[in-house]
Amino acid sequence: MFRCSVRLIKGLTQITWLREQPVLPNLLYRRSVPAAYLPSRALRVTWPCAEEVKDFSLPNPSWSQNMRNLYNKYMELSQQGSWIRLPSYNVTATHLIGKAEQCPDSAKPQVTTRLFTRNLDVEGLGFEYVMFYNQAELRTVGIFQAGPYLEGPIGLTHGGAIATIVDTTSGACAICTLGKVKTANLNINYRSPITLGSTVEVQCRVDKIEGRKIFMSTEIRSADSQVLHIEATALFIQMKMSE
Amino acid sequence: MFRCSVRLIKGLTQITWLREQPVLPNLLYRRSVPAAYLPSRALRVTWPCAEEVKDFSLPNPSWSQNMRNLYNKYMELSQQGSWIRLPSYNVTATHLIGKAEQCPDSAKPQVTTRLFTRNLDVEGLGFEYVMFYNQAELRTVGIFQAGPYLEGPIGLTHGGAIATIVDTTSGACAICTLGKVKTANLNINYRSPITLGSTVEVQCRVDKIEGRKIFMSTEIRSADSQVLHIEATALFIQMKMSE
Repeated sequence: MFRCSVRLIKGLTQITWLREQPVLPNLLYRRSVPAAYLPSRALRVTWPCAEEVKDFSLPNPSWSQNMRNLYNKYMELSQQGSWIRLPSYNVTATHLIGKAEQCPDSAKPQVTTRLFTRNLDVEGLGFEYVMFYNQAELRTVGIFQAGPYLEGPIGLTHGGAIATIVDTTSGACAICTLGKVKTANLNINYRSPITLGSTVEVQCRVDKIEGRKIFMSTEIRSADSQVLHIEATALFIQMKMSE
Repeated sequence: MFRCSVRLIKGLTQITWLREQPVLPNLLYRRSVPAAYLPSRALRVTWPCAEEVKDFSLPNPSWSQNMRNLYNKYMELSQQGSWIRLPSYNVTATHLIGKAEQCPDSAKPQVTTRLFTRNLDVEGLGFEYVMFYNQAELRTVGIFQAGPYLEGPIGLTHGGAIATIVDTTSGACAICTLGKVKTANLNINYRSPITLGSTVEVQCRVDKIEGRKIFMSTEIRSADSQVLHIEATALFIQMKMSE
């Protein structure tokens, strides 16, 4: 997704994030990041118009039992404070830095476009996913259910749909960690196919940060963790304030 | 797409391919490929039920002038015999090896699923693309117009949608060259963003073949070739007859 992907990250929004944790924690001071690239202590990532749009990362009737079980697991961990669920919408978000402000007209959803991963109208046909971020460990977990409109080979998930989930989940981790970023590289090894209809767990972590570069690695495993589907790395570049 | 992607390749179908060129040319004898992995001289890649479904790789009213110009360019080259247009459908295809046969029930389209790149009902919203294959040079060219439902960052094409086009176009080249394949690796460098609504040209070529491995490289450039958007490599593995 996430060439500078602001939108998915509308998630880091006032509802779950800004109101509960109005200032993004000072995550990186323990890391060797030049001060100029550190997120401000006053950084706020907000989506002022979030109430107007549907949050797609909540359970719906298409979710499998595996999807619900994993969702419940991370929701319980969220209640303990270690993880936070990232909301997700299908329209353009804004990504504000600084004090939370009223939504300007220019930041309102662009209804003529849609986020690629949320562009189907019927629940369950395409990407069903929810992501959680762990601030202390600089990790995201994505729970992904592949719908029947993501087909590549007969009965299996398209390699491009899998790449999209890798980009989305690792990009979310990069944005949560460094703010606005763009994808510079994706390198994906396909170890075993993902059957349509199945639920998988996407584990992303920050490997290192060098200046404006953030290096991520990702594994996708079956819901029971027994099957390794994907191993991937990604490089994101923190965007400058002017970008 | 193309983890074994048979479907896009339904394109190599009776209408444009099988009927005009009933036996897939003996493409690889000049390359150092073990004989066991060479496509048979009698290989036919066919989609017996193609008449039942729409071919999405033909011009429609959503196509931009750039898209039409590039399409016309390669159609003219096709008439000269150097390129062949690959049809593209939104439902599951079959991929038969051997003499063309009547379509068995088991090979008919699975209407409950859709090819990921053709899963939107309205023309112009998602992936608009057409691919051409050059048999002599082992290359594909994809002409791709990014619709407004492929958004990642505001106004720009999602990195996962771009990865999907890389997989699709390089996978098509691999399938045309070696037959049924699966994606093993995608490595994509994002050099500059692709604006929604713009048309780009995707150039894929075979770098080398080692046993069942086929190594591809891809460049995506603006319609006028002046802007380099993407550089990528891909590795596909030829599937065994039993797979």
